[in-house]
Amino acid sequence: MTDLIASLRQIVGDAHVLTDGDLTAYEQDWRRRVHGKALAVVRPATTEQVAAVVKACAANGTSIVPQGGNTGLVVGSTPDTSGQQVVLNLGRMQAIRAIDKDNLTVTVEAGCILQTLQERCESQGYLFPLSLAAEGSCTIGGNLGTNAGGTQVVRYGNTRELCLGLEVVNAQGEIWNGLKGLRKDNTGYDLRNLFIGSEGTLGVITAATMKIYPMPASQLTAWAAMPSFDAAVRLLALAHQYLGAGLTGFEVMNRFALTLVDKHMPQLRVPFIDNPAFPYAVVLENSDSESEEHARSRFEALMEAAFEQEIVLDAVVAENLGQAHNLWHIRESIPLAQVEEGLNIKHDISVPISRIPEFVEHATQVLNDKVPGMRLVNFGHLGDGNLHFNVQAPEGVDAKQFLDEREHEVNHIVYDAVAAFGGSISAEHGIGTLKVDTLPQYQSPVALSMMRAVKAALDPQNIMNPHAMVTRG
Amino acid sequence: MTDLIASLRQIVGDAHVLTDGDLTAYEQDWRRRVHGKALAVVRPATTEQVAAVVKACAANGTSIVPQGGNTGLVVGSTPDTSGQQVVLNLGRMQAIRAIDKDNLTVTVEAGCILQTLQERCESQGYLFPLSLAAEGSCTIGGNLGTNAGGTQVVRYGNTRELCLGLEVVNAQGEIWNGLKGLRKDNTGYDLRNLFIGSEGTLGVITAATMKIYPMPASQLTAWAAMPSFDAAVRLLALAHQYLGAGLTGFEVMNRFALTLVDKHMPQLRVPFIDNPAFPYAVVLENSDSESEEHARSRFEALMEAAFEQEIVLDAVVAENLGQAHNLWHIRESIPLAQVEEGLNIKHDISVPISRIPEFVEHATQVLNDKVPGMRLVNFGHLGDGNLHFNVQAPEGVDAKQFLDEREHEVNHIVYDAVAAFGGSISAEHGIGTLKVDTLPQYQSPVALSMMRAVKAALDPQNIMNPHAMVTRG
Repeated sequence: MTDLIASLRQIVGDAHVLTDGDLTAYEQDWRRRVHGKALAVVRPATTEQVAAVVKACAANGTSIVPQGGNTGLVVGSTPDTSGQQVVLNLGRMQAIRAIDKDNLTVTVEAGCILQTLQERCESQGYLFPLSLAAEGSCTIGGNLGTNAGGTQVVRYGNTRELCLGLEVVNAQGEIWNGLKGLRKDNTGYDLRNLFIGSEGTLGVITAATMKIYPMPASQLTAWAAMPSFDAAVRLLALAHQYLGAGLTGFEVMNRFALTLVDKHMPQLRVPFIDNPAFPYAVVLENSDSESEEHARSRFEALMEAAFEQEIVLDAVVAENLGQAHNLWHIRESIPLAQVEEGLNIKHDISVPISRIPEFVEHATQVLNDKVPGMRLVNFGHLGDGNLHFNVQAPEGVDAKQFLDEREHEVNHIVYDAVAAFGGSISAEHGIGTLKVDTLPQYQSPVALSMMRAVKAALDPQNIMNPHAMVTRG
Repeated sequence: MTDLIASLRQIVGDAHVLTDGDLTAYEQDWRRRVHGKALAVVRPATTEQVAAVVKACAANGTSIVPQGGNTGLVVGSTPDTSGQQVVLNLGRMQAIRAIDKDNLTVTVEAGCILQTLQERCESQGYLFPLSLAAEGSCTIGGNLGTNAGGTQVVRYGNTRELCLGLEVVNAQGEIWNGLKGLRKDNTGYDLRNLFIGSEGTLGVITAATMKIYPMPASQLTAWAAMPSFDAAVRLLALAHQYLGAGLTGFEVMNRFALTLVDKHMPQLRVPFIDNPAFPYAVVLENSDSESEEHARSRFEALMEAAFEQEIVLDAVVAENLGQAHNLWHIRESIPLAQVEEGLNIKHDISVPISRIPEFVEHATQVLNDKVPGMRLVNFGHLGDGNLHFNVQAPEGVDAKQFLDEREHEVNHIVYDAVAAFGGSISAEHGIGTLKVDTLPQYQSPVALSMMRAVKAALDPQNIMNPHAMVTRG
């Protein structure tokens, strides 16, 4: 192992092979569920260095855990406790190599912080639409490795749909330059999409060419108080009809989620919180290529139709950017408000949109039966069928104890309901090591066997993040 | 072999195993370049029958050529001349299983004709946006197998981007049901995209869940006369800015392509054809979720800006559906007009949009130098960077002889130029058996080796369309 570390030092320089001191930032996951121990944390500066690092590890049979901002929620980017894995942190590769305005693409290295990328594009008049809570610390490489979702998927798709090309170092340490930035290219299997969302188990994404869009002339936000979950689904259909591709955000929140925000962040002023007649609220965004005036008139037409059909009880359209930010801030504060309330059992599920109301009713009922008093924090990206269906301990029950005793059971209640309604147990967070043992119970065995065959074919030594996602079994 | 045929008859019924009579429709490719000979043409009616057919063939070591409408342009869906391959034609599996309005999805079997699917969705008030010349005879399974493109890609993406889930029979004859219809699902490798565009070399797509959209309130078409190719790229950028996601079509045509239409289909009345000042024309489409009036006002704002910047020389916006159809009909008649003029050397290339003007200039110059008098039919989906950069024999030269003598050379002139500008030698048509020997010269060796590993992993017997796309080498 000392030979390997010497090689790694030679490749990336002494300063960028970390073995001593406090490596918590690299060895512990974002939610602090697991604290591993790395053989070394290696921080290469170039694609060639990444390739050399992989080759050195492969020659030594040492496994590699690729890491971006280490903000994932399923423990997929930290080492195990053996002290034998190399953490390959891409944080030094953060160049934005090129913005191509006519091609509407940006080519960026894996370690670039998402928010940096958003801001750089915006400064040139372009929108990079991927947006999610961790954007200040997550990296585009991590977003690609996990196929991150976020709040703009209803219009722009997941990270997958925003990517036109990849540069990858494969498990043999070879560099594949697939950064063509083409919108059409049918010259073989879709390796790009195979690597996207593979959680570093097939190779290391070192750079990508991503789609950008002309900045919309206006982005308006509205908040609607809903009489039922079903009404939210009806409003979504109306919004698709009235706004077309202008609909760039559609989030749902249940009343309990909002009361937590109201309780722990009273300065945020949740709209209509004092009116107990609405069990759900929706925040929606309309992006318009014409003007704010036009965006507003379309929102008004939509809301008029919704009021007429008695889908919406009350609504407010943000008058200015400050109000819009406040509405989104309420939505984004739900996870933090939950933390303030105490530990909870998180889920990240998706169900076909047409079946969500029935799923919510069914799953809530089973949870109520089996876990009396549990408090449901139900919110998420309804436009994509993705809910964070989180379960908070009953009032007065110790949250830590609740988690320790009931997490497994609660997970399976939710997952079984998801399966019954044709959904997914991981919509946007991925599998990592956290759900790796759960996956086989809910994924098709035929699909799993094909995934294992692909893993064995591309990483025959089983050195790329071997405990995550698709294990060799 | 007689045992195998007996088994196949037992699985799908005698009437659906064709061995005698005129099998040209199944054995010859669309452009009549190759006429193969099948052991049998098998036409299953269900996914279970497909699985049983694959199992029977696998047990016998017999290779399978999956086939949809057999309209592909790269000889990827016909048998070789050995008389030993089974053609698996999906034409009987044409059910539209479900239209889910709230989920905005349609689930459809592989053999459904594309136009049938479009019409069924439209009758329910929804748009299935995939649109291409062969839509009256191609099937959705073939579209998926080849990742078909067409005229709406600038807004809706390729077939790949329209698909949310697949049902597949793999090379072992197992059924993978991946028809969840979820917009977010991060539970393993992206097998869906691996099978899409794999040209039947990994398994057989038997059904799919595809995205649909609320029918736009208005679809307007305009025609613009352009002073240069570069101006067309400038107009595209303006159109993205002014129309946003309303821009659903953007096609470019050079003057020679239009003179062929004018010559062979004079009834079509090509706009501005008598004005020699424009070397290029563009047809563009604006889809609006609000109204025709609004669509028209946005088109006018766009054209005004384009006139001011002297990008556009002259323009016309279709006044009604009839005029719009006529404009599109001109664009779509170019391939037929070329046939009328005589055989030609076809290409289907893509280049980053920012580099297309330079590519066109360079490639044209090299062709002019090496093939004096050649006539370039340059047209295609500029919005996606995809051109059909076709070469017609010099005037007075026998087209057949020109093709026989010069095709190989002309292909490599064009492909070398494409490679020099970072493009793709097959944007939307695929590889098939026609380009299988050319691919390794232009695709990354690292990518090819990964593709071969995937092929070997998922089809270890090498029985799925073994001569197409990625051969085992």
